[in-house]
Amino acid sequence: MSQTEKRPSCIVIGAGSARGIGGACARRFAAGGFHVFVAGHTEHKISELAQTLRSEGGHVEPVVTDVTRKADIARLFDYAMSGSQGHAPPELVIYNAGNNKPIPLLDLDADAFEHYWRVGCYGGFLAGQEAVRRLLPLGRGSIIFTGASGSLRGREQFAHFAVAKAGLRMLAQSMAREFGPQGLHVAHVLIDGGVDGDRLRSVLPDLADRLGEDGMLSVEGIADAYWYLHHQPRSTWTQELDLRPYRESF
Amino acid sequence: MSQTEKRPSCIVIGAGSARGIGGACARRFAAGGFHVFVAGHTEHKISELAQTLRSEGGHVEPVVTDVTRKADIARLFDYAMSGSQGHAPPELVIYNAGNNKPIPLLDLDADAFEHYWRVGCYGGFLAGQEAVRRLLPLGRGSIIFTGASGSLRGREQFAHFAVAKAGLRMLAQSMAREFGPQGLHVAHVLIDGGVDGDRLRSVLPDLADRLGEDGMLSVEGIADAYWYLHHQPRSTWTQELDLRPYRESF
Amino acid sequence: MSQTEKRPSCIVIGAGSARGIGGACARRFAAGGFHVFVAGHTEHKISELAQTLRSEGGHVEPVVTDVTRKADIARLFDYAMSGSQGHAPPELVIYNAGNNKPIPLLDLDADAFEHYWRVGCYGGFLAGQEAVRRLLPLGRGSIIFTGASGSLRGREQFAHFAVAKAGLRMLAQSMAREFGPQGLHVAHVLIDGGVDGDRLRSVLPDLADRLGEDGMLSVEGIADAYWYLHHQPRSTWTQELDLRPYRESF
Amino acid sequence: MSQTEKRPSCIVIGAGSARGIGGACARRFAAGGFHVFVAGHTEHKISELAQTLRSEGGHVEPVVTDVTRKADIARLFDYAMSGSQGHAPPELVIYNAGNNKPIPLLDLDADAFEHYWRVGCYGGFLAGQEAVRRLLPLGRGSIIFTGASGSLRGREQFAHFAVAKAGLRMLAQSMAREFGPQGLHVAHVLIDGGVDGDRLRSVLPDLADRLGEDGMLSVEGIADAYWYLHHQPRSTWTQELDLRPYRESF
Repeated sequence: MSQTEKRPSCIVIGAGSARGIGGACARRFAAGGFHVFVAGHTEHKISELAQTLRSEGGHVEPVVTDVTRKADIARLFDYAMSGSQGHAPPELVIYNAGNNKPIPLLDLDADAFEHYWRVGCYGGFLAGQEAVRRLLPLGRGSIIFTGASGSLRGREQFAHFAVAKAGLRMLAQSMAREFGPQGLHVAHVLIDGGVDGDRLRSVLPDLADRLGEDGMLSVEGIADAYWYLHHQPRSTWTQELDLRPYRESF
Repeated sequence: MSQTEKRPSCIVIGAGSARGIGGACARRFAAGGFHVFVAGHTEHKISELAQTLRSEGGHVEPVVTDVTRKADIARLFDYAMSGSQGHAPPELVIYNAGNNKPIPLLDLDADAFEHYWRVGCYGGFLAGQEAVRRLLPLGRGSIIFTGASGSLRGREQFAHFAVAKAGLRMLAQSMAREFGPQGLHVAHVLIDGGVDGDRLRSVLPDLADRLGEDGMLSVEGIADAYWYLHHQPRSTWTQELDLRPYRESF
Repeated sequence: MSQTEKRPSCIVIGAGSARGIGGACARRFAAGGFHVFVAGHTEHKISELAQTLRSEGGHVEPVVTDVTRKADIARLFDYAMSGSQGHAPPELVIYNAGNNKPIPLLDLDADAFEHYWRVGCYGGFLAGQEAVRRLLPLGRGSIIFTGASGSLRGREQFAHFAVAKAGLRMLAQSMAREFGPQGLHVAHVLIDGGVDGDRLRSVLPDLADRLGEDGMLSVEGIADAYWYLHHQPRSTWTQELDLRPYRESF
Repeated sequence: MSQTEKRPSCIVIGAGSARGIGGACARRFAAGGFHVFVAGHTEHKISELAQTLRSEGGHVEPVVTDVTRKADIARLFDYAMSGSQGHAPPELVIYNAGNNKPIPLLDLDADAFEHYWRVGCYGGFLAGQEAVRRLLPLGRGSIIFTGASGSLRGREQFAHFAVAKAGLRMLAQSMAREFGPQGLHVAHVLIDGGVDGDRLRSVLPDLADRLGEDGMLSVEGIADAYWYLHHQPRSTWTQELDLRPYRESF
C-alpha cells in the first residue's frame, strides 16, 4: 500500500467469536489489507475478536451495535465513514446477524416470532439501506447477506427462521435489481449445513463430532467465498450462491 | 342441510369491499352454504359487505379486527367458535390481508417497511397459529394464504412487499409440513396480475381500462380457486398454485 | 346437450389402465359429457379402457399411438379432428406419458437415459406443438402436462427422470408464455407422492399397503384437478399446481 | 512444480474460440499450471485455440469430439487419462457445449428440438457419467456444467433451449447429490446475459456495442468463477451460482 493510497475498509455486522462466520470474514478481510469494523451486540465478544485479530496484525475496530435499532446502524456507518483512522470509506458491508433453532409452531411465542424477523431481516434492511446511501456516491461497493437453506424452504418447526431468512433474500434480490445498474454489488449466500464454529461445537458437540471436520462448513471457506464475491468484476457478478459440505444431504 | 346438521362456517380475514378478493371469497362460501365471518380493519366496509351478502341470502357476520394484534385475532376466533348462531366451528380460515405499492428503497421509511410485514406476514402468523389451535382437535380443516408474484421474486422497488409476501409463503410451507400429516390443509395462492376489483378500478382506472375485463384477475375466479382448494380430498391436496389472467406476462 | 350443440371432445395421451392417471382423466371427462380419445402405446390396455368407460356410458375411443413418433401424433390429431363421430374438435389435450424408477447414474445406459427423455419430454413437445396448431384457430383450449416432484428437483439416482420432467416443465412454461395471450391455457401439474393406481399396487404392493388409502394420491382427485384447470375462466388461469397426499413429506 | 509432481490436468468440453467461455476456461487453467485438453466439434477452431494458448506458454491439446457420440466421449477420456504427456489424470471436467437462439414454437422442427437437447443435455450426461467413472477412484475432482437463465425459466420462443438447459441442471443436481458424499464436486453455473465473446460480437455486433464492455459478461470473469469453484475446499462447496453483468435486468 503506497503512502497516498488509503487502506480499504469494510463493515461486518453480526460478528461474535473469531470462530464464527462474521469473525472469519473479519479475519479474512483484515488479512487481505482491509480496515475492518466488527459490529455486534455483545461488547466483550467483539472486543475480544478485535483484539485477537489485531494480535495477528489486523486493523480491526469493534463497534457495539444493536442491529434492530436504526440509530445504532446510523451511528455505526457514521463512525466507519469518518475515516479518522486514515482508512478509505467502507466499500463492503456484510450482514450476518441471525439465530436459528427449531420451535414447534404452537410453542412459538408471538414476540419470539417477531424477534427472529427483527434480527434476521429488519436489521438487514436497516443496514442495507444505510449501506446503499453511503455506497451510491462512490458508484461501487458490495453488500453481502448471509442466508441459509431456510431462505428457500420453510421446513417443519422452522417457520420463524424461514420467514426471516426468505425475507432477507427478497431484500437482497430487490436491492440487487435496484442498485446493481448503479454499480452496487448485492449478493446473497445460502449457507446449508452445520457451521464448524464455536456455536455448533459448544451447543451440539456430539453432532459436531459425528459430522467430522469437513462434514461441517469451515468458516474460512465461507470467508473465502465472501472475499471472492467482493472481488468479482462488475461484468461478472454473482447474486446468489450456495455453500455446503460435501457430505451434506440437500 | 338437515335439521340436525349444523351449517359449516369459515373466517375470511382481510375483507373489505364486496369487489375485492376477501369479499368475493365471502360471497362464494356464503353462496355455498357457509356461515361466514368477515374480519377487517374498517368497520363500515365489512358491515356493508356483510349487509350486501345477507341481502343475497348469505349468513355473514362482520368482526372488526386489527390483524396485527394478537388479542384481536384471539377474540375473532373465540367469537367464531362460540357457535351461538347455530353454526359448526370454522373449518376454513382465509388470510388475505396486505397492501402493495412500489417504493424506492431509499424512500422506504423503517416504520413503513415494518408495517408492510406486520400486516402481510405477522398477522398471518397470528391467524395461522390460532387457526391451527382450533382446527387440530377437529383433525381437519383448511388454512389458505393469499400470496403474490412478490412471494417468489424481489423486484426493484418492492423490497417491503416481497419481504412480507415471501415470509407469508414460508409460513404457509412450514405449517403445511408440520400440520398436513395431522389433517390440516395449508395452501398458498400466488395471485399474479391486476385484480379486477374496487381497489384497482379506483386507484388506477386507466390501467384497468387498458387491461380490459379478462386482462385482470376476476375476484370470482379467485374465490372459485379457494372453494376448489378447500374441497380437495386429503389424498390429493394442493399446497401452492398460481392464478393470472391469460394476457399477463410472467 | 341440445341437438345442434356438438359434444365437446378431448385427447388423453399416455393412457393405460382405468386405475391410472390417464384412465381416471378419461373417465372424468367422459362423465362430464366429453367425447374422449385415449391414446397409448399398448393396444389391449387402451381398448380395455375404452370398453370399460363405454360400459359406464362414456363416449370413448382408443387410438394406438407411439408418443415418440411425430407421424403417430399427427395421425392421432387428424383422427380426433375429423369429427366423424359428430363431436366438436378437441378443446383439451392432456399429456401424461412417462415412467419412473431410480437408477444409479453409473448403471444408466445412454439409450435408457434417452428413452426416458423421449417418452417423458420429446413426446410432450410433439403433442404440444400439434395441439397448439389445432387449437390456435379456435382461440381457446387447454393443454395440460403431468409433472412430478422430479420436475423441480434432481434427486440422487433420478437424473434420467428429472431431466425428462424438468424439460417437460420448461416446455409447458414456454408454451404458456407464448400462447396464453392467444387464448390457450397451458398448465403443468406436479404430482408428488405415490399414486393409488394399478402400477403402484402391482409393482410395490407393500408400499401401497403401508401408505394406506389416502396416503397415496387418488387418481380421481388428480382427474378432478384437471377438470378444474380446464374450466378456469381465462381471467384466472393456473399455470402450475402441486398435488400430494396429506401425509406426504415434501 | 517439483520434478516428481505431475502437472494437474483438466478437460474442457465445448471449446471453440479463445474468446468464448470454453476458450477462456482453457486459458485460465493453462495459466494456472494445468495441462488442458480442449474438446470441440470443429477441428480448426480447437487447433487454433490450442496453438494460441501454447504460444502463451500453456500445455494445451485439442481433441476433436462430437459430444453427442458416446464413443467420442470415451475416446476423449481415454486419451486424457493416458498420461503420455507426463500429466496427472484429469481432476476437472467442464461441460460447456450448447447453442441458443429464439425459435417460435410452431417453427421449431422436431429434429432441431432434439438437436438442442442432444448437444445441450445428452452430451452432458455422456461426459458427466464418464467423468464420474474416472474421478471416483481418485475420490476427488470437479465436474462443472455451464447453464443459463433458461435453466430456470422457460421463456417464450425458447422451449428448445430451456428444455436442454433445465435438463442439464437436473443432471448436475442429481450427480451432486449422488457423488458429492464420495468426494466429487459437481457444480452448475447460471450464465445470465450476453457474453462478451466472438459469438456475440460477430452475430450481433450492434447489441454488443449497445451493451458496452462491462454490460456483457467477460469470459475471463466466467473462467475465474470456474477456477474458484474447482479450488473450493470440500467443506464448503458451491453447487450453483449465477453470473451476470451489473447492468443486466433479471
